[in-house]
This record gives sequence, structure tokens and C-alpha cells, in this order.
Amino acid sequence: MLRYLLPDNLRPGTRPGALAHDSEAPRQHPLVIRHMSYDPAGATEADYQNFDQCPDITASTRLDWLHFQGDVPPSVLARLRDSFGLHPLAVEDVQNLGQRPKLEIFDDCLFVTLALPRRDAGNLRFEQVSVFASPQLVLSFHAGSDDITAPIRQRIQSGKGRIRHAGADYLLYALIDLIVDFDFPLLETYADELDALEEDIFTRPRQNPVSHIHHIKSDLIGLRKVLWHQAAMLGELVRSEHPLLVADNLPYYRDAEDHARRVNDLLDGYRDACSSLLDTHLSLSSARLNDTMKVLTVISTIFIPLSFVAGLYGMNFDTDLPGNMPELSLPYAYPVLLGGMLTLAVGMLILFRRRGWL
Amino acid sequence: MLRYLLPDNLRPGTRPGALAHDSEAPRQHPLVIRHMSYDPAGATEADYQNFDQCPDITASTRLDWLHFQGDVPPSVLARLRDSFGLHPLAVEDVQNLGQRPKLEIFDDCLFVTLALPRRDAGNLRFEQVSVFASPQLVLSFHAGSDDITAPIRQRIQSGKGRIRHAGADYLLYALIDLIVDFDFPLLETYADELDALEEDIFTRPRQNPVSHIHHIKSDLIGLRKVLWHQAAMLGELVRSEHPLLVADNLPYYRDAEDHARRVNDLLDGYRDACSSLLDTHLSLSSARLNDTMKVLTVISTIFIPLSFVAGLYGMNFDTDLPGNMPELSLPYAYPVLLGGMLTLAVGMLILFRRRGWL
Amino acid sequence: MLRYLLPDNLRPGTRPGALAHDSEAPRQHPLVIRHMSYDPAGATEADYQNFDQCPDITASTRLDWLHFQGDVPPSVLARLRDSFGLHPLAVEDVQNLGQRPKLEIFDDCLFVTLALPRRDAGNLRFEQVSVFASPQLVLSFHAGSDDITAPIRQRIQSGKGRIRHAGADYLLYALIDLIVDFDFPLLETYADELDALEEDIFTRPRQNPVSHIHHIKSDLIGLRKVLWHQAAMLGELVRSEHPLLVADNLPYYRDAEDHARRVNDLLDGYRDACSSLLDTHLSLSSARLNDTMKVLTVISTIFIPLSFVAGLYGMNFDTDLPGNMPELSLPYAYPVLLGGMLTLAVGMLILFRRRGWL
Amino acid sequence: MLRYLLPDNLRPGTRPGALAHDSEAPRQHPLVIRHMSYDPAGATEADYQNFDQCPDITASTRLDWLHFQGDVPPSVLARLRDSFGLHPLAVEDVQNLGQRPKLEIFDDCLFVTLALPRRDAGNLRFEQVSVFASPQLVLSFHAGSDDITAPIRQRIQSGKGRIRHAGADYLLYALIDLIVDFDFPLLETYADELDALEEDIFTRPRQNPVSHIHHIKSDLIGLRKVLWHQAAMLGELVRSEHPLLVADNLPYYRDAEDHARRVNDLLDGYRDACSSLLDTHLSLSSARLNDTMKVLTVISTIFIPLSFVAGLYGMNFDTDLPGNMPELSLPYAYPVLLGGMLTLAVGMLILFRRRGWL
Amino acid sequence: MLRYLLPDNLRPGTRPGALAHDSEAPRQHPLVIRHMSYDPAGATEADYQNFDQCPDITASTRLDWLHFQGDVPPSVLARLRDSFGLHPLAVEDVQNLGQRPKLEIFDDCLFVTLALPRRDAGNLRFEQVSVFASPQLVLSFHAGSDDITAPIRQRIQSGKGRIRHAGADYLLYALIDLIVDFDFPLLETYADELDALEEDIFTRPRQNPVSHIHHIKSDLIGLRKVLWHQAAMLGELVRSEHPLLVADNLPYYRDAEDHARRVNDLLDGYRDACSSLLDTHLSLSSARLNDTMKVLTVISTIFIPLSFVAGLYGMNFDTDLPGNMPELSLPYAYPVLLGGMLTLAVGMLILFRRRGWL
Repeated sequence: MLRYLLPDNLRPGTRPGALAHDSEAPRQHPLVIRHMSYDPAGATEADYQNFDQCPDITASTRLDWLHFQGDVPPSVLARLRDSFGLHPLAVEDVQNLGQRPKLEIFDDCLFVTLALPRRDAGNLRFEQVSVFASPQLVLSFHAGSDDITAPIRQRIQSGKGRIRHAGADYLLYALIDLIVDFDFPLLETYADELDALEEDIFTRPRQNPVSHIHHIKSDLIGLRKVLWHQAAMLGELVRSEHPLLVADNLPYYRDAEDHARRVNDLLDGYRDACSSLLDTHLSLSSARLNDTMKVLTVISTIFIPLSFVAGLYGMNFDTDLPGNMPELSLPYAYPVLLGGMLTLAVGMLILFRRRGWL
Repeated sequence: MLRYLLPDNLRPGTRPGALAHDSEAPRQHPLVIRHMSYDPAGATEADYQNFDQCPDITASTRLDWLHFQGDVPPSVLARLRDSFGLHPLAVEDVQNLGQRPKLEIFDDCLFVTLALPRRDAGNLRFEQVSVFASPQLVLSFHAGSDDITAPIRQRIQSGKGRIRHAGADYLLYALIDLIVDFDFPLLETYADELDALEEDIFTRPRQNPVSHIHHIKSDLIGLRKVLWHQAAMLGELVRSEHPLLVADNLPYYRDAEDHARRVNDLLDGYRDACSSLLDTHLSLSSARLNDTMKVLTVISTIFIPLSFVAGLYGMNFDTDLPGNMPELSLPYAYPVLLGGMLTLAVGMLILFRRRGWL
Repeated sequence: MLRYLLPDNLRPGTRPGALAHDSEAPRQHPLVIRHMSYDPAGATEADYQNFDQCPDITASTRLDWLHFQGDVPPSVLARLRDSFGLHPLAVEDVQNLGQRPKLEIFDDCLFVTLALPRRDAGNLRFEQVSVFASPQLVLSFHAGSDDITAPIRQRIQSGKGRIRHAGADYLLYALIDLIVDFDFPLLETYADELDALEEDIFTRPRQNPVSHIHHIKSDLIGLRKVLWHQAAMLGELVRSEHPLLVADNLPYYRDAEDHARRVNDLLDGYRDACSSLLDTHLSLSSARLNDTMKVLTVISTIFIPLSFVAGLYGMNFDTDLPGNMPELSLPYAYPVLLGGMLTLAVGMLILFRRRGWL
Repeated sequence: MLRYLLPDNLRPGTRPGALAHDSEAPRQHPLVIRHMSYDPAGATEADYQNFDQCPDITASTRLDWLHFQGDVPPSVLARLRDSFGLHPLAVEDVQNLGQRPKLEIFDDCLFVTLALPRRDAGNLRFEQVSVFASPQLVLSFHAGSDDITAPIRQRIQSGKGRIRHAGADYLLYALIDLIVDFDFPLLETYADELDALEEDIFTRPRQNPVSHIHHIKSDLIGLRKVLWHQAAMLGELVRSEHPLLVADNLPYYRDAEDHARRVNDLLDGYRDACSSLLDTHLSLSSARLNDTMKVLTVISTIFIPLSFVAGLYGMNFDTDLPGNMPELSLPYAYPVLLGGMLTLAVGMLILFRRRGWL
Repeated sequence: MLRYLLPDNLRPGTRPGALAHDSEAPRQHPLVIRHMSYDPAGATEADYQNFDQCPDITASTRLDWLHFQGDVPPSVLARLRDSFGLHPLAVEDVQNLGQRPKLEIFDDCLFVTLALPRRDAGNLRFEQVSVFASPQLVLSFHAGSDDITAPIRQRIQSGKGRIRHAGADYLLYALIDLIVDFDFPLLETYADELDALEEDIFTRPRQNPVSHIHHIKSDLIGLRKVLWHQAAMLGELVRSEHPLLVADNLPYYRDAEDHARRVNDLLDGYRDACSSLLDTHLSLSSARLNDTMKVLTVISTIFIPLSFVAGLYGMNFDTDLPGNMPELSLPYAYPVLLGGMLTLAVGMLILFRRRGWL
């Protein structure tokens, strides 16, 4: 987690807006370009493996949406930058993974970077989603290998709801809403783990939940830091009064911001729960340890005086001389002594119990 | 508590404003629709089990208030949305329980979502109350089975006070005030438990209050998170300058906000009290444990040297040889030794007591 | 403390602005009404036990000040409300003790609620003081039995200073200044107790200051919560630009606000001192305990090997057989053994001391 | 420290602006009045022990600066108030030591109160410096016995820099800058002590630094509380746009504010360092204690089973009967037993070491 | 770290804007002056060891950049101040190392002070970089001996990117961006150490990471305090609307601010990680210690009763008298006793294990 937000290729002194060479770029996720072109009347969809297969869309009268899923070669980014007049710094941000969620407002275009948290085998990582939205064109980039935009494409194909009638800003909203809503099932996995941990702390005292709580808390802190910026960025977007944002769609943006804020509330609550769980665990396990040590110490404390008495009568004083251990030469002294020892032990037990030491 | 605010049906990619099918909706609380129609001259009231029984109120010249108590089928929500021109997202919020208290301002209508905390058998849960207020119509929804609005309906019927003379905004205020004032008796139950816990901590050292305090603190954190937003939302409402809010009623709204702020002050105070109780308990129980362990250790420490001496005179050196344990062959050596041991023990006790170890 | 700010009679659903019946109201403090009527030329003063004895002051051309000391019957409040056109919610606030300090600004009148902290036998409680100020009339209510306004009445009688020449706003200021300045001697009692506790912690290690510190800290948290609002309310008053407040008197109001802020600074400082004292006590008493346990454990650790050696020579092997404990049959073996044991004990002591374990 | 900011003579009900009688005022520091009169052409300086010796300066065409060093009798303050038309509340603030640093803005005059922290024999105290600045007259009051303004008077005499050419506002700045810069050498004494404490914590484990850290932290909290207000007050002064402040001198004021802010940064850093030192000390000393106790407990644990074996062979069973302790009657049983005990002890040691218990 | 921000030569009473004498100034790093003069058409570069070698640039029509690397003699600063009309306080800030990052806005010129954190052998220190930027001249000062500006000079020489076409503000941006980007590799060294520490805490329980964590945390707190001001200062610069800043270059400034904010996010995250690591270490090592002590105590607790029994049969009662230890005179009593002891020991072990004490 520590390294998140630490950019890969920020070397002091590099030229701002410079793109890497294709050979230096990561090629972890294969590139798929999903092209959708629609207007209220209808929608066409096509997938390409290669940017060269893309048709020329500069003259299109419909709304065109190019979704780049996977790792985009820097050369393709450079061609997009030059064809559509994108700002070099924004294009650099698409390439440099590990951005803070941010919003750049240009005269004719909005650029947002979103973070999509994913969890594989208990490890949290973030996938970056960047979107350029202009009146006739939406470019989105998802540095991952899942086809997360399928539900939106389906809604466009089916033509239900506002999506085909509203413009580029509604598509931008739909993408933001999609990314934000991915947070809820993720949070649910943490809620499940915390509930299970709480159950364990009260019922299975021998397990040590410290490292598990530490792990969850680190994740939550990391998530909070990123998603707090995401919510703040959405608030900035709602209040930006950019001409692209139609007044009718503002309630939808506010709704998305509200969801993002709620995610942060939940994260705060879970973090408090972590701290509270840890405190409770420590306090309970310390109480248990104390009880154990007290019982063990009481056992020793009862036997030590008895051992002393036994040692006393094991001394080898010459009993023929006067005054020397006459008890040893009395009949029935042994059972009397045993009885005395038993009385002493029971008396100590009663005393300790009364004082609450047992 | 952890799951509160985690919405039931937020799946990434669902269409915003979409309502569930009636078959998927919860049917825990039976629906009762309480219809009140009033003006300064008089008031009529009717209850229905079914929305189809409702008369057409679009042409009514009085102020109409429809209160939906229980689970409202999505199909009814859809009909309300279409009849009265409600915003789809707001109607979706009525359906999705677990909302943050929030305010949506529309040109001709106000929409507020409130959280009503309830406590059953020590478990905190929230019931959601949503209200649409427009000049001639107030729609309120309470996802629970108690008839909480009875006092307001009685005040309308009796005609005492401003309520029949003031408009929809005063009814909205009355509902908000009702919901907020429900917090005080709830808080009193926590105050009672905390007082009892404080009493116990000082007088019954053997009970472990940790899990109880943990439980109360979790509840308070959850309440704080929700009710803080409720107070903030009321503040936003007071300062909204919406045409529905008549200047004469603003002091009432400010009063309701003041109550909501006071609830948050109390919650903060109780949470501090929880932390302080926990610290005090830990510090007192640790002091008690330390005293116990010190006494036990002192007992051992006194007997261990005595046992050593007894062991010494239990050694089997041949006393016939010169220098070997001549004490064993002296008359009255035993009582002298016992006296010496007693002196040693008493001396150690005095020393330990003087150093404050007892 | 927990119950402070939890209002006595807030039942959900009660009509806002409703006053209790006289029979339900508290009658703890007998009512005294102190009436003062003054202008630059002179001042007259009269005390009444009963509101019916009050003369009609509606036609008075002087500044009239009615101070109600003690519990005011709701019927009297209702008559005041109706005679002087006071807002019902403000009058309800006079009746409901346990208000947050607050300011209500009306067109022709200011209403402030102040909290006067008192300490009886170590228990903190708050008395509520409410003031209505309008150009010709000041009404003040003090729910307590001390005659706290005597110094102000004396200043009016003597005619020294500005008080008789300045108007209602200066009288309001004088009342606020009086209430705020009562906080300083109260804070001094806490400063005294904290100083004594600090002294004790370093010099009387056997006393347990935890519950005393806990008590003081609870008081300070409660005071802070109430007096912070009081200072904020005064700030709001200073910046209200209400026509009642003459520009010449603003420096006085700012001075009162400054005093209130200083009270909060002191409270913060004392609370930090509490925490610091508790930490220091815990750390010192834990250091003392550790020293004790270390010394006791060192004593045991030194005697346990010696006891083992003594036990060894208490074994009953048949010394006539070859190899079996020939030491027992040597002359002067006993003093040599004693010397060896002493050497071992001293050696261990030196080693432990060198390692810093003593 | 606790009492700082608790004013000496604030009794509830005293008349605002009232000055004490000369007989009640403190006379700890003898009064010296340093009078400086200068313009760009030259400067004259004179010292008086008594205010009656001061010449009449109302008709002076130069900038006059009267610096009152020591305790000023209330009668002198009253005469200054009446001669120069100073506000009564501001003059009262000069008399009442223990003010929060504050700024009062009057139409023709600025009044600031500054706190000058001093440290004598490790005890922190504050001296109050108050300044009235008007276009032709600066009055400053320093309730202490050091001649702190000597460097400024020297700069005026020498005529170097801007001071003789700039007006009253530059002199006010010079005084503020002087007072603020006194904080740096004071802070350095704390930095020295903290560095020494850090060194000690890692190298001299037997010293207990808790009370020293507690003392420093209390000082820092007290300093922070006062100097934070001082910095905030300077910021308010910079942004006051008072006609006395010439635009050319604003960079100097901003520089003084910057110094004051830096002092607060340093204080925050030192306070963090205190907390961190305390945590580190506690964690190190607890680790050391744990190691000690573990070693001591291991020694006991090794000898207790050995003692048991020795005790076993000290039993007095009748070896003539069959089955009763035949080992006692075997040749070389003793050395074999010793060897066995040694093996057991070494085995336990190895086991404990492997498990990391040593 | 404690001393950072504590200026070297701030003596109360010194004249503001005064420069030291050359003989008092530090001469740790030899001075190199790097002169670059460029316009879109070309660039010339020259290095001088001495300010006297610099050509006169007042009549230059190109953009001139003088970078002073190393310790600049006060006399050179005085000549720069007088030649280019720089503000004396700003020039004093160049000389006084240990400034807070700050921005001074003059009508025709911007002055920024930046902090460049470096880490040598694990010790954090700050080098100060100050820049004066005016339309035709940029002066930069770096109080260190590394040639950090080489990448910028190279970009100017090569003519790639905007740098030769944009003006002084872009050069200022390039310097700021360079300094800010130096933070990332530095942070990476902390991330590496924290990752290694986390690994150690879970896998090498015997190492004590407390002082290492303490060291890192101190560094992070110091960095945070300085770099937070740096980010705030960049934000101020972006929003300053100074005529020097061309609108086209604002996205670059915003990008630099964004990097600085991200550095602070990372620092916050690392500090949280430190605290979390420390807590986890303490909780794990306390759990380990508790386990150890429990096992050791259990061993003692098992052998102490056994030793008592052995001691019992070591008593020397006269077995010839009736009732006195008849067991000693029974055949096979010894093996029976041994069996009984074994049963007791095994029984205690089972009991302890069942209760979770082992």
C-alpha cells in the first residue's frame, strides 16, 4: 500500500508532458478498443485489437465513445493527443498510473482520473480509469483486463432510460457512477471480515487478530486517502459550471457525489471499528492473561509456605538435646501437622478468594 | 452497525432511478396510508390499506398530506412519481433504505430523508423517513410499523397552535421536529447505561465492562455519523431560501436545527464518557492487579529465604567431623533458629511496607 | 454531567412553544422580581415576590429592567409573552432549563441564553440565565437562588461609569460580562485541585488519583462543551450588526467575547493538564511497580539456586558406597559450602546490579 | 503554568475600564520611563524615574516614544488615558497582566498586547508588553526589569537603516519584531534539553525522564497557546488596512508574522518530539524490563525442577523395604544424578534460547 | 531535526534586511555561477567561479538566468540587491538558511524559497533554493554542492519542448518542478525502510525496531512540516494572478502543485504506517512476552506442589511413634508416590492446556 500514489516514472528533471517509448511501457493487460457510436435513433458497436483498425471518427455526427481497455502504447496516446488536441499533461496522466483522482477543466473538454479499487486474494490494488469528455467524443482508458463497461454498453444498445437521449456528459456520469458503485461490494468484503473478527475476538481468545486488523486498517487508510480525493473531485465537478454539464443532468452528478461521500463515511466507520476492535482485543486478552497469571501465582503462593514448613521438619537438629524439635518425637505429630497444613492452605484460599484474587 | 449506510441493492452498472419489481421489495411492515386533508377551517382524516383506495387529490384546494407507514410497493412509488412529477432519483432514494440524511432542492418541491434511530433489546437500528413537500401536497414515507405521526394528526384535528393555519412548510417542520425529538429519549437510555457502568467500575471491580462499553461506543459512533449529517442537512435547509419556506416559520426550523445540534453535542459527550470510562476501568483494574501481584510476590519473597535456611539445616553433613554444622548439636538451637527466622520475616515485612510494596 | 443539555420535558410530538402548567413546573428556588427603572438623571429600585405586584411599565419613558430570580411560574411567562410580544419559542427556552447558550435575533429585540456554572461540594451544575433586550425594556431570568446582579444594581444606583448613560445594550453587556466573569473564580478551584494533584503524584506515590482526575476531566469536558458555545454566541452577537448595539459599546462586547475565549483557552489548558497528569501518574506508578517487582524477583532468583544446593546435600544417598556424596564426609565441608554459597549470592548480586536490574 | 492567562483582579461585577488604586498595584519592578524624540534629522533621548519629570509632548512635531519599563502606577495610567484620549478598556488591559496577545483597532490609534516569554532557572513566565501607536506618539509598557529596547534606541541614535525615516508604524514593527525574535533563543534552550533527553533515553536507561518531559511539555503547551494567538494577532494586523500602516512597511510586518508563525511551527515540532520521546522511553524501558524479568524467570524455571529432584532424594523412605528408593543404595548414583541434573539444566537452557526466551 | 527552521543568526534587535559580513558567512560549498542566456533562436551558457567574471546583463534582450550554486558571499548578494533592485528582506532570506518555504509577491518580480530535502547516511537535511523571477531575468540560489539544474540546462540547450519558447515563468516552473520531483526518490527510501521494518516485525521478533521507527517518524514529521508549507505556497502562487504568470503555463503550475500535494499525501500515509507499525510491534511483542511468561510460570506451578510433597517425605518425624509417617515404612511406597506425582503433574498440564494457559 505504501507505494500507491508513488508514480512509476517521475524522475526529477524530466520534461513535463513527455511520453515514454513504447518499449518502456508496461504490457501486462492486452489492449482492446471498444468503439460505440450512438444517437437517439440507434447505436453501433465494434471492438478492435489495434488502434490502426479504428475508423476515422472526426467527421462523425453521432456521439462517439472509444474505450481503451488494457495497456495503451505511448505511441497511440501520442496519436490521440495530436488528432484530438488533448493537453499533453493530461495525456501524460493517462500514461502514469498511480495518479490522485483529479479533474482538469479545459475550455472544450473535461478530463477526470478515477481510481477503481480491486481486491485479489486479500490484496488491495487500484486500477486507473481516465476519461476525456467533449461534446461529440468520449475517450476512456481503463488500465485493467476486466470488461467493466459492459453494463453501460448494454444500456446504450437497449435504448432504455435517458442514456441514448442525453449527451456526452451523461455518458461521463454513467462511467463515474459505475466506478463509484464498484466500491460498495468491495467495502462489503471488509465489513464481512470485520464482523468475523469481532465474533472471533469474543469467542476464540487464542487467535491473534492483530496482524489481520493491521492489514485491514492499512487497506482502509489507503482507500480513504484515494477515495476522499475522488469524492472531493466529484464535488468540484458538480460545482464547476462547465458548459458541457447540462442542468438536467446535475441531479445525477450530485447523486454520484453523494455515493462517493457515503463510501467515505463507511470507510471512516470501518476504520473506527478497526481501532475499537484492536482496543477490545488487547483489553480482553490482557484481562485473560492477568487472570491466568493470578491463578498460577496463587497456586505458588499457597505451596511455598507449606514447603517451608516441610523443610523445617526435615532439619537434622539433634533431637536428643533439649529444646531441639521436640515435635518430631511426639506421637501423632505427623497427622496433626498435615491437618495444620491443610487448614493453612484452605485459609489462604478463602482469604484470596474473598479479596477477589481468584 | 457496520452495514448501516451500505445500500441493499446498489449493484455497479444498474440504471439510475430504476425501481425494483414489487416481488423483490421487502414486505416486513404492512402498508397503512394515512390521508389528512386540512385548511384553517377544518380537517378530515382517513386510513387506507391500499393505494387504490386513495381518492384523487390533484384537484384538492386544501393541503393534502399522505403518510405511507410500512413498506411501499415499488409499483405505488412509480405511480406517485408519475402522478406528481417527482424526480426519479428522489423516488429511488425512498425505496433504497440506508440513505444518509439528505436534502434535495427542486424548484417547486423539497425532498428530505431523515433517519429515525430505534433501539430494540439493546440493538440499534435506523428507520428511514422521507418527505416530499410542495405547496399543496406533502408525501411522507416511514419504513416502520409504529404510528409515529399520531401526535401531529391529533394537533391538526384539535386545531390548537399554528399548524392548521401555516402551510406545507410548517407540516414539514412538524415532521422534522418529531423525528429529531425521538433522539432524546433514545439518548437517555445510553446515559442510564453509562451511569450504571460508571457506578459498577468503581464499586464492582470483578465485572468486565469492556464489551459493554465497546458496544455502546459503536452505537454512539454510528449514531453520530448519521445524525451529524442530519443536523448539517437541517442547517442547509434553514439557509436554502427556498420559496416554500415562509420567513415566519424560520425560527421553528432554526429551533429544530438547534435540537439536532444538541443531540450531536450529547453524542460527543457520551463518546468522550465512554473513552474516559474505559481508561478509568483499565487504569483501576491494572492498579488492582498490580496490588494483588505485589502482595503475592511479597509472600513468596519472604518464604523463599526461610525455606533456604530450613533446607540448609536439612543437609546431611557428617556432624562428627570437625566444622560440619556444629549448630545441629547445640541445645536450644531449634527455638533460637525459629526466632531468627521470625525476626527475618518480620524485618522483611517491615522493610517492604516502608518502601510501599505492601 | 452526562445529563446536562438533555432537556427535561422534550417529549417527541409536543407542540413547539407550548408552556407547561404551573403545577408541573419546578418550585425549587422562590421567585423574587427585582425591578429597576433608570435614566441618566436617576434610578428607582423595587423588589416584588409576586408578578401581580409589578406596576404597569408599558408607558414608562425610562429604561426598565425586570430581573426574575428563582423559578418563574409558566403562567407568568405566558403573561410576559403576551404583554411584550415575545416570541413563543424564546419564552419556551426560558422555561426549559438545560439549553445550549444561544442567541436569537428578532427585529426589535435580542434574546440570549447564558450558562452560569456553579460548583457545590465538588459537583458541577449549570444555572441558566436568559435575557430579552429591547430598546426600553430588559427582562432577565436567573434560575437560581443567589442574588448575582447586586453589583450591577449598585453601579446603576451609584451612577458611576457609563451604565446609566448608555442604553439597554450596555445593560445587556453588563449582564453578559457578569456571567462570564463568574467563570474565572470557578476555574481557579480546578487550578488549585490540579496543582495539588500534581504535587501528590510526585510526592505521595501511594494515593490513586485516577478517579479524582477522571472527575475533574469530566467536569472540564462538560464546561468546555457549554462555554465554547457561549463564546461562539458572543462572537455572533458582536458581528450581528443589530440596531440595538450602538457602535460605542462594541469594544465592551468584544472585551466580553475576549474573556469568554480566554475561559475556553484555560479549559483547554486544564484538560491537557489532566491528560498529562494521568499519563505521568501511570508512567510513574508503572515505573515504581516495575522496580518493586524487579527487586522481589531478584531476591527469589538469588535464593532459588542456593536452596537447590542445600537440597542437594539433604539427599540421603548411602555415603558408604563409593562415589556417593563424599563431600558429606569431609571435615570443614560445611563452612566451605557456606562460603561458596555466599560467593555465589554476592556474585549474582554484582552481576544483576551491573546489568541495571537492581 | 496553569494559572497563566487567569487574570489577577477579575472579580465578577467590577466596573469595566476601572483602574486599581496605586496602593493595590504591584511594585515589583521599579519604573523607568525612556523618552525618545526623533525625526529624520536627529534624535534626543532622556530617562526619567517619575512621570512628573516628563516634559509636555503634546505640541511636539517629532515622533515621540515613551517606553515605560517596570510597574506603572494606576494613577499614571489614568493621566495617560486622559491626556492622550486612550480607550479605558485598553488602559485596563495594560494594567491587568496575563492578557492574551491581542489587537484593538481604533480610528486614530492601534493597541497591541504582546507576550514576552522568559525562563528563569527552568521556570517559564511571561512578561507583558503593550504598545499604543498613533501617528505622532508611541507609548509602550513592559512589565519587567530588563532594558529590552536598548538595541532599537541604538538604531534610532545611529540613524542607520529606515527607522528614523519611517514613521510610528515602523517603530511599532521594530518593537513587535524585537519581542518575537526573543522567542528563538528561548526555544533553543528547549531544543538543547530535548536533544540531551533523547541522548539519555538511548544511552542511560536507568534515569527516569518522565517528569522532565512532563515539565517541558507543559511549558510548550503554555507557550503554544499564547504565541499562537500572537501570530494570529499579527496576521490580523497585516490585513487590517489601518491608515497608520504605510504600504511600504507591509513587507516588514509580513516578515514579523512569518517569524511568529515559524515559532509556532517549532513549538509544534518540539511538542511532537516530547510525545515521541515519551513513547520511545516507555517502549524502550518496557522492553528492558521484559528482558530482565524473562531472564530472572528463566533462572527460577531451571532451578525449580532440579530442586524437586534433590528434594526427592532427600525423602526418608525406609530403603530396607523392597521398592523404596533403591537408587540411594547404588554405587556412583550421586555423580550420575549430578550429571543428569546438569544435562536437564543445559537442555532447558538450549530449548529456551531456541525459542527466543533468552 | 529539532533545530531545522531555527534560524542561524536571528538575534533579537538586529536590523531587518541587514546582511552579514563576508567573514561571518559560511563557506562550506564553493561558489559556481552558471549563466544561461537564451531566446527561441538559441542559447549560450557559461560558468564562472567569481561574480566579477559575470558580464553586464542589464542591456541583454534575451532571457538571462544566473544560477548561484554554493555559498554566496554577502557582498555579492548586496551587489545583486543594488543592481537589480531586489527587496532587502528577500535578499536577507536568501542568506539566512532554514527558511520556511515562502512566496513574496512584488509588482515586477516573484520571490520563492523552496526546501530541497536530502538524505546522507540516513540523516535528513534541507538545502535551501531561492528564486527571483522577473520578465527578463531569473536569479536562483542553491546552498549546496550538487549541480541539480543540469537537466534543465540540457533541455534549454537541446531546444526540445516549450522551454526556450516560453518565458521566465516557465523557467520558474521548471525549477519548482525539479525541486518538488526530488521528493519522490527520497520518499522511496523511506518506503523501502518501512517495508523492510514491517517484514522484520512479523518475522524477526527479537529485533527492537523502536528506535528506527522513532527516527523515521521524526524525519517524516519534519518533512511534513516543511513540505506542507511548500505545497500551500505553490497553491498561493497558482492563485496569485501575477502578471508574470502567463495563462498558458498555469496548467504546468497546477501540475507542480498537484505533485507537491501528492508528496504530502504520501508523507501522511507513511506517518500513519509508522504509528501502525509501532502499535503492531508493541502488541505482537507483548503477546510473545506473555506467552513466554505463561509457559515459564506454568512450569514453576507444576513443580512447586511436587517439591512440597517431596519435602513432606523428607521430614524427620520419629517413625517409631504411632501415627508418624507410616507411609515411609511401607514396601513399594516410593514407586507409588512417584506414580502419584506423575499423575498430578500430567493432570495439571491437561487442566492448564484446557483452560488455554499453554
